[in-house]
Amino acid sequence: MELAELCKRAKDTKQQVGILSTNRKNQVLLAVADKLWEKRQRIIEANHTDMENGRKSNMPEGLLDRLLLTEERIKDMGEGLRQVAALEDPIGEVLSMKRRPNGLMIGRKRVPLGVIGIIYESRPNVTSDAFGLCFKTGNVVILRGGKDAIHSNRAVVEVIRGALEECGVAKTAVSLIEDTSHETAAEFMKMNAYVDVLIPRGGAGLIRTVVENATIPVIETGTGNCHIFVDESADFDMACDIIFNAKTQRIGVCNACESLLVHKNILDAFMPVIEKRLAEKQVEIRADKEILQVSVEGANVVPATEEDWGKEYLDYKISAKSVESLDEAIAHINRYNTGHSEAIITNNYVNAERFLNEVDAAAVYVNASTRFTDGFEFGFGAEIGISTQKLHARGPMGLLALTSSKYIIYGNGQIR
Amino acid sequence: MELAELCKRAKDTKQQVGILSTNRKNQVLLAVADKLWEKRQRIIEANHTDMENGRKSNMPEGLLDRLLLTEERIKDMGEGLRQVAALEDPIGEVLSMKRRPNGLMIGRKRVPLGVIGIIYESRPNVTSDAFGLCFKTGNVVILRGGKDAIHSNRAVVEVIRGALEECGVAKTAVSLIEDTSHETAAEFMKMNAYVDVLIPRGGAGLIRTVVENATIPVIETGTGNCHIFVDESADFDMACDIIFNAKTQRIGVCNACESLLVHKNILDAFMPVIEKRLAEKQVEIRADKEILQVSVEGANVVPATEEDWGKEYLDYKISAKSVESLDEAIAHINRYNTGHSEAIITNNYVNAERFLNEVDAAAVYVNASTRFTDGFEFGFGAEIGISTQKLHARGPMGLLALTSSKYIIYGNGQIR
Repeated sequence: MELAELCKRAKDTKQQVGILSTNRKNQVLLAVADKLWEKRQRIIEANHTDMENGRKSNMPEGLLDRLLLTEERIKDMGEGLRQVAALEDPIGEVLSMKRRPNGLMIGRKRVPLGVIGIIYESRPNVTSDAFGLCFKTGNVVILRGGKDAIHSNRAVVEVIRGALEECGVAKTAVSLIEDTSHETAAEFMKMNAYVDVLIPRGGAGLIRTVVENATIPVIETGTGNCHIFVDESADFDMACDIIFNAKTQRIGVCNACESLLVHKNILDAFMPVIEKRLAEKQVEIRADKEILQVSVEGANVVPATEEDWGKEYLDYKISAKSVESLDEAIAHINRYNTGHSEAIITNNYVNAERFLNEVDAAAVYVNASTRFTDGFEFGFGAEIGISTQKLHARGPMGLLALTSSKYIIYGNGQIR
Repeated sequence: MELAELCKRAKDTKQQVGILSTNRKNQVLLAVADKLWEKRQRIIEANHTDMENGRKSNMPEGLLDRLLLTEERIKDMGEGLRQVAALEDPIGEVLSMKRRPNGLMIGRKRVPLGVIGIIYESRPNVTSDAFGLCFKTGNVVILRGGKDAIHSNRAVVEVIRGALEECGVAKTAVSLIEDTSHETAAEFMKMNAYVDVLIPRGGAGLIRTVVENATIPVIETGTGNCHIFVDESADFDMACDIIFNAKTQRIGVCNACESLLVHKNILDAFMPVIEKRLAEKQVEIRADKEILQVSVEGANVVPATEEDWGKEYLDYKISAKSVESLDEAIAHINRYNTGHSEAIITNNYVNAERFLNEVDAAAVYVNASTRFTDGFEFGFGAEIGISTQKLHARGPMGLLALTSSKYIIYGNGQIR
């Protein structure tokens, strides 16, 4: 089917999906969960084709692992949908309703965004996850997954559409763009007439491409060059535990710590301790000259270049810089960060408050690991991504980020 | 100055402006208001140059009038700033703060967007209005006004910068892009490294250009193809008053009514009444054949073409179509509207509620004029524009639309 036609059908479905009751939507989500399990053999076969193609084209092991679907993973996909079904439905809530002097009652009501486009890479589980979150919030979704996962995605979408039809909902509530060429993706990003919002999910390259090419409004989910600043008054044990956790608990994630700032007055005392701790996981420290000077012999410390301050390693590496003051720490972070998550370790009240106020990022922490920036950890029950832009949604995005509002006005003949 | 350098300086100023107290911000706004009046002669002289250039290049009277600054209009600009100073400052409010099971306190705090770019056309009063709203919300603003108003804009920005400096605030809190070429505007729209949000204010052409070229997130302020649906059960007097008001009270505005839908069961009785009423202002009605058939002799009714259903006339013209049912009315509106303001005139409870629920627009009315979609009428005290997109802000945008939020997290050593 032509892309424009697919998008038009999605738009034509949004009125129906937007007014479904919560019960109907939950019924569909549970039906999809059941059906994914029922058709697991068929999905695994389709996935097998993708895996074989991946191996033929020498896909790296890490990517092959992301692409793989097993019974266990299909069970998890269903479990995810059941969890979304259990969440409160935000649609229809009237956020406020006020009476104006002329008697007009003006209310603000939570409504779906409409048609959401999701552009993602090789994980086929995103297909059911994204459908679940979008459908629960009354949105129609158009999926454009990666070429590598096309057979798996097609099988999963077929299952979802089957469940939709069995529940009496138009199957065009979800669509998959089967032509995975770059040209079609570029065309999709300009379908303003039909698509309300685009959410890219993937690496920095994908996100940049979408931001640069889309004319549809985009929610940018971003990379994380997250800092931890160890202030003069920090508790060293706490600082070590937090840095170790934020750097090494999971290295490939956007909320991992990538850069360490240490107050110059504690360099001598603190650096040997944290160097030793990070050595447990062979973390390489890329340090400025002040830190190099105080490093203990045998520590895994190498000189940093200017480039290191802006780097998201996603690896057992961390940059480290000494700073003269809180002001220098804040200025450095505001210059090099990606607006994701930043932390200060301190016992100083004024510095804690200044850091919270003056650092410009989606999530700013005092005395806790940056690893908590996550929809589940924040208590949203689900997550469609972490926004690093300031429009619409900032930080972990749960169901609310997939909604808009409209003004509803009750009059009795008012004119201006 | 080079554009990138100008944008960089704006970004470097946002930390200072973002943490100004409400008192300091109000002090600046009042100082600018005073100074605009004090320097009115200088501003009027600069405006005179723009007016002369406009006349030389045969600018239409309507545009010349928009460009003109008089003592009266400069007084109004100051008055606008005083009103903004009197509004509540939304920055710093903590919207919610919850304790997670692990003891983390996670709050959501209202913060400035950062650096806002405003791209506008020939009205020089936008220069002080936009500065006032952006500054009150702790934002730095970069203005790119039209070529026609460059001398006026330069004079106004000079006054604002003078007041900023006298109050001890960096003058880079406001900047004017003096090179008004299209190339520089296009370059500005891609300054993602420095600018957080772009808001275009102007006609459909300007907005399209920004949406198509910007890589910075845009808040689209849009055109209005607003409909009024006269349901079978409508009170005819009320319907006539509302339609007359919405069409003719001010024709050049985005919340004016451009299209009329009438239930077929009342065509015979209602059309002659409304035709007579609209004739008071010589409104031309572009009608479908059912309406043409029932039109009284001598009425200003001509056949509509398909193109008329999507048209924003901004003139004494209105399209008119008969519909079989509420369903047809809703489907027609959702197909042709621009997501601005839509109204139903009815006494039927079910139809009123269905219209409010199912019509997809920023503002949906029962028994009131679409002309109320406006920041002042909604009680926001000020308005930076009316958003017709669904991300971030929808409908009239007051101060809140110029804010974002960030998560602030208080821990005591939590790790994952």
